[in-house]
Amino acid sequence: MTTQVQALYDFTGEPGTTEMSITCGEILTLLNTEIGEGWWEGRNAKGETGLFPAAYVRKLTPEDSVPTKMAPAAPRYDQAADDWSDQQFSAGDNNYQRTTSNDDGWDDDWDDDTYSEIGPGAQQQTKANFSQQQPLTPLPGMPINDYNHHIDDTASNFGSSVGTVRKNKFAPSSKVSGESYLLGTLNVEVPDHEKVYIIQDEDGYAWSPIAQPYSVTVASPKKESKFKGIKSFIAYQLTPSFNNIQVSRRYKHFDWLHERLQEKFSLIPIPPLPDKQISGRYDEQLIERRRVQLQEFVDWMCKHPVLSKCEVWQHFLTCTDEKRWKAGKRQAERDNLLGLNYCISLVVPEKALLQSQVDHITEQCYTFISSMDTSVKSVTNMCIAQTKRFQGPYKSDCQKIGEAFYNLGNALSLDEGTIVSTSKLTSAIKMTGGAYIEIGRMYEEQPKYDFEPLGDKFHLYKGIVGGFPEVLANHKGAVQKKRECERLTAEHKMEIAQLNEVLRRTDVISYALLAEINHFKSERTIDLKATMQKFLRQQINFYKRVVDKLENTLQHYDN
Amino acid sequence: MTTQVQALYDFTGEPGTTEMSITCGEILTLLNTEIGEGWWEGRNAKGETGLFPAAYVRKLTPEDSVPTKMAPAAPRYDQAADDWSDQQFSAGDNNYQRTTSNDDGWDDDWDDDTYSEIGPGAQQQTKANFSQQQPLTPLPGMPINDYNHHIDDTASNFGSSVGTVRKNKFAPSSKVSGESYLLGTLNVEVPDHEKVYIIQDEDGYAWSPIAQPYSVTVASPKKESKFKGIKSFIAYQLTPSFNNIQVSRRYKHFDWLHERLQEKFSLIPIPPLPDKQISGRYDEQLIERRRVQLQEFVDWMCKHPVLSKCEVWQHFLTCTDEKRWKAGKRQAERDNLLGLNYCISLVVPEKALLQSQVDHITEQCYTFISSMDTSVKSVTNMCIAQTKRFQGPYKSDCQKIGEAFYNLGNALSLDEGTIVSTSKLTSAIKMTGGAYIEIGRMYEEQPKYDFEPLGDKFHLYKGIVGGFPEVLANHKGAVQKKRECERLTAEHKMEIAQLNEVLRRTDVISYALLAEINHFKSERTIDLKATMQKFLRQQINFYKRVVDKLENTLQHYDN
Repeated sequence: MTTQVQALYDFTGEPGTTEMSITCGEILTLLNTEIGEGWWEGRNAKGETGLFPAAYVRKLTPEDSVPTKMAPAAPRYDQAADDWSDQQFSAGDNNYQRTTSNDDGWDDDWDDDTYSEIGPGAQQQTKANFSQQQPLTPLPGMPINDYNHHIDDTASNFGSSVGTVRKNKFAPSSKVSGESYLLGTLNVEVPDHEKVYIIQDEDGYAWSPIAQPYSVTVASPKKESKFKGIKSFIAYQLTPSFNNIQVSRRYKHFDWLHERLQEKFSLIPIPPLPDKQISGRYDEQLIERRRVQLQEFVDWMCKHPVLSKCEVWQHFLTCTDEKRWKAGKRQAERDNLLGLNYCISLVVPEKALLQSQVDHITEQCYTFISSMDTSVKSVTNMCIAQTKRFQGPYKSDCQKIGEAFYNLGNALSLDEGTIVSTSKLTSAIKMTGGAYIEIGRMYEEQPKYDFEPLGDKFHLYKGIVGGFPEVLANHKGAVQKKRECERLTAEHKMEIAQLNEVLRRTDVISYALLAEINHFKSERTIDLKATMQKFLRQQINFYKRVVDKLENTLQHYDN
Repeated sequence: MTTQVQALYDFTGEPGTTEMSITCGEILTLLNTEIGEGWWEGRNAKGETGLFPAAYVRKLTPEDSVPTKMAPAAPRYDQAADDWSDQQFSAGDNNYQRTTSNDDGWDDDWDDDTYSEIGPGAQQQTKANFSQQQPLTPLPGMPINDYNHHIDDTASNFGSSVGTVRKNKFAPSSKVSGESYLLGTLNVEVPDHEKVYIIQDEDGYAWSPIAQPYSVTVASPKKESKFKGIKSFIAYQLTPSFNNIQVSRRYKHFDWLHERLQEKFSLIPIPPLPDKQISGRYDEQLIERRRVQLQEFVDWMCKHPVLSKCEVWQHFLTCTDEKRWKAGKRQAERDNLLGLNYCISLVVPEKALLQSQVDHITEQCYTFISSMDTSVKSVTNMCIAQTKRFQGPYKSDCQKIGEAFYNLGNALSLDEGTIVSTSKLTSAIKMTGGAYIEIGRMYEEQPKYDFEPLGDKFHLYKGIVGGFPEVLANHKGAVQKKRECERLTAEHKMEIAQLNEVLRRTDVISYALLAEINHFKSERTIDLKATMQKFLRQQINFYKRVVDKLENTLQHYDN
């Protein structure tokens, strides 16, 4: 099947390479997505073929909206990438996952006997989970089409661009989860230590702050091996500040964690894991970028009052024992409090919320997120583009300047007699050439201090912002449901007592959304300030070093 | 006829424009050279067509070596360029010039009645000049093929790239001029004030320094008109420092002057006039670049001990009266002391030169010039390329950075409540966006302070260096001739007395060459130092301003 893509940005291919220039709006036929390193191959209207950054285009086919489902096998360009490639598989749908779970390397590499140990009972548990996930049966009289239509609207405005909107293998589709909570049929006792409080502060409602803040460092990954070295893989070393005990986690462990978090928290956007499509020219550079993006993921987790203390995350951070790991893993996968059902753990202010106020805030959030989504993507793409520019044309331009001067100096030295002043001039000109060649190297090095970290930060924001539409849709679904219940009660088809419970629980859901909106606002305010300052300081430092180099060179003419 | 060109440099076309990327070494079919502004149109091997800078390619056809002869009619993109276009015609060969001299606008625009006033006598004078220019009849026994072959070798090594190697309408081919001087048959009395002295100083032989140094400014050109405004043209205002009287000269006057200088001084490279193919995006910018390059021409003339005081130049600089102008023009065109014959005006040290020493210096000069020719072209092209880069991609890259930040600020402002700190952050981010957009504008403006003046200076050097191979060939021809005479004398076919005169006069020619080589060396030593310092200071200033802008922006985050 031919897939067409449309260029979202201008991209100028490096002449003399396989890269191809594309122009914003241009339609291309996609030839190959297995190039790796963030590149795709395509053919333009003129019939030229070449590579362009996958991030610069969007697919035009309907499959667009579930890109991971249709994605081809992962490119296998190196061992690290190989290890990485499971991300693509695990992001597939249920069926896909189930048929491939025995040969995708998940079990082989990590937890060979998870399934066999669990046995039939566990299988049943899994099945029970699935049965819970069937699409919501509309209540009698509920206009199901309208309901779905409405929510679809909300989510589809963000289209395929919302990277984290995806189903995962165990989680129910979050649109429909939580019915039992909302209708008051879910009633479990949550232990105190698992309760999460929402409080009112000067800015509105907020998650109760983290009692004991901590941080976790993600250290440079190590290549580990098992089966006597036959298989090797990259493992990241995580060290939490609260115990200083290092744990070793592979990307697929992160991926597993991410799935658990996604299915559990339908009102909290989960920070994204690194993309497969990180730009970078060397394996080392690629691995380092992934490490930085994992650090961003981990940082966001640590700073989130709810996520930072959730059980599966704590298990991921601290477990060093294989048996306990398996037990924790099974427990997490059996968790019933998923999606809106998780809200049973929340303790919110007594006060009932004013629906109009909630509507106002969510609408503002929707408008904001919609605009922010475009902005963070544009910053991310700009960072990728600038990195490429610095490492490619900017570097080579400087080197061309340098070579022109250096060769001039060389030519002049062919006509040198014993005239001392000429000789000094010649060497100063050669030095000028050398300085520009050096500046070229500085351009090549620079992105790792400014545009790459900025891009990594905005990768995080892209994920968070991209998660909000689903969060908003989940909330909106609950509100619609509540209105439906109000109507049913008016029509005497629902008891007042049940309606009151529905109203109370809808408020809990709204409180959670408001707390999360506020959390995102206050986090990004601090974080973006620091990010921008760091970026600008690095840029200033760079141009200062250019000035220093040139001033140093200029001095050689004065002797 | 299809003409093919080969790319000398990489050029990256701006996406979304008619520009085409070309890669060094790539062969293209030339489609159109009449685009103007330094652009040519071509088709690459893939069949794509587009524009690229003419300076980035070289023609592959044999006509290559006499590009002006085959050049199509000048592009007529504006009045200024129209006026400019005569350069191309006047650079043609004799026949071409003669058939077109009545309709190329030369007479119309300037000196309508020059030819008719001179009458039959003047025509005869012109004819007499031509008869003098017939190819040198080899002396009996002289191996003419070897002789020509040798000189051709010297000149052709520089190929078509030597812009100023050209025949002009009255001058004899400089290869063969000056026989009457060399063989001692030319004996005219040169008035004392026209004598030019060569002296010995610490660095070797030198032109006697300028007694009264002066400078000439070329002011911003004015659009003038004649025939009651029907014809308009650009005139440059020249003001010499020695009399402070402004004269108005059009490009064709410069061109006429340049021809006179070329035919008269076969041992002195004449500084070049501006190219047609100056890069620049607006008429004003083009006109200003031409002014700067004319200023470079004028400066070199003023600083040259021989050129600065020659009669045709003085006439050009000072004549304000139309009648006197015509008389001077006629006189210059009747000048018999052209090419090597001019050497009759030289007074040199008594001492005979050692041929081996002369050979050593000229060989070193040849090697140097050959290498320098490549270098100055590469600097010139680098300046053109960098100018384009700064005004194109560098500018637009900065603006893309700026827009990304600015839009981020805008998105954030959609979620502003009354939180003051957020609001400050948002405005700081918007300001950062603005700063990068402003830096983009600085990039666009910058070349006129660094790369353009550097390019203008190296345009001058390209012309001077490009003139040297012919100068060296002229000298070499004389030396060959001398050797021939020595052989003839050994064979008793020439009188010893005549040989001695030949030897003496060959020494005069060598003295002139040595003086010119030294002049070029000392001039460029001073000039290149100042040029490089000025360039570096401008570059430093630019990057400092970038730092200032960013530091200023950074401060807004600290409030």
